[in-house]
Amino acid sequence: MIKPYDDAYFMKRALQEAETAYEKGEVPIGAIVVVNNQIIARAHNLTETLNDVTAHAEMQAITAAANSLGGKYLIDCTLYVTIEPCQMCAGALFWSQISNIVYGARDELRGCITMNTKLHPKTKMKGGVLAEEASALLKRFFIEKRNLN
Amino acid sequence: MIKPYDDAYFMKRALQEAETAYEKGEVPIGAIVVVNNQIIARAHNLTETLNDVTAHAEMQAITAAANSLGGKYLIDCTLYVTIEPCQMCAGALFWSQISNIVYGARDELRGCITMNTKLHPKTKMKGGVLAEEASALLKRFFIEKRNLN
Repeated sequence: MIKPYDDAYFMKRALQEAETAYEKGEVPIGAIVVVNNQIIARAHNLTETLNDVTAHAEMQAITAAANSLGGKYLIDCTLYVTIEPCQMCAGALFWSQISNIVYGARDELRGCITMNTKLHPKTKMKGGVLAEEASALLKRFFIEKRNLN
Repeated sequence: MIKPYDDAYFMKRALQEAETAYEKGEVPIGAIVVVNNQIIARAHNLTETLNDVTAHAEMQAITAAANSLGGKYLIDCTLYVTIEPCQMCAGALFWSQISNIVYGARDELRGCITMNTKLHPKTKMKGGVLAEEASALLKRFFIEKRNLN
């Protein structure tokens, strides 16, 4: 049976957001929120554009998803994010009580797994979906940035 | 020597923000950001009003302070917050590289100390400033809320 809406399908949408961030000179990380196979929020990192360390893709996706749902808890929602969330974003996801987090590549230095950030007991997290694509985009960004300086 | 601008002085301003939150039916937590004895940001919890779990007092204070400074790093700044920050807010403060965090009362259940959230190496944190006032306001809020339900 053909299954059009799988994790790779949605992670590709998150990667499109990451590419938009890349084009803006932002650290290329993208996120979307999905409920019942519908995308209810799309966001990408905007920390440089907004001059705001809190403007990570996930934070904006959480706010946008809550706006879309008309309620602040993201029950039955899945966040797809290209890179493992940091402790700020994982902390926000804790408060949202989101059902699922799916990330692409690990962030072994600053990610919530290394940092031991607590997720909500209702939240399941898995990673490794299109990890190479997410990681390659990030590496390309940092190599380019280094060559410019 | 009279020292008009001490931690208690600024924490009183943060408590005023917490009282504004209380009047709006929000969990009463307030925060301000200070640099060179000047308040550059004031904020209070707005999670109910904005339907947004990310709208903690500290998060808004970080964004407002960065706007005021015209840069996203809060070097030489002090955040005064009535209750110990949660892991989301401590995670945001990590990215801001803020110099000092001063909180009022501990949050032993969900605070960043219990949660073991990592602060930036440049950040110093201390607590216990007007802790009883901050804690009493929070308790009053939850007692009132319980009686209404």
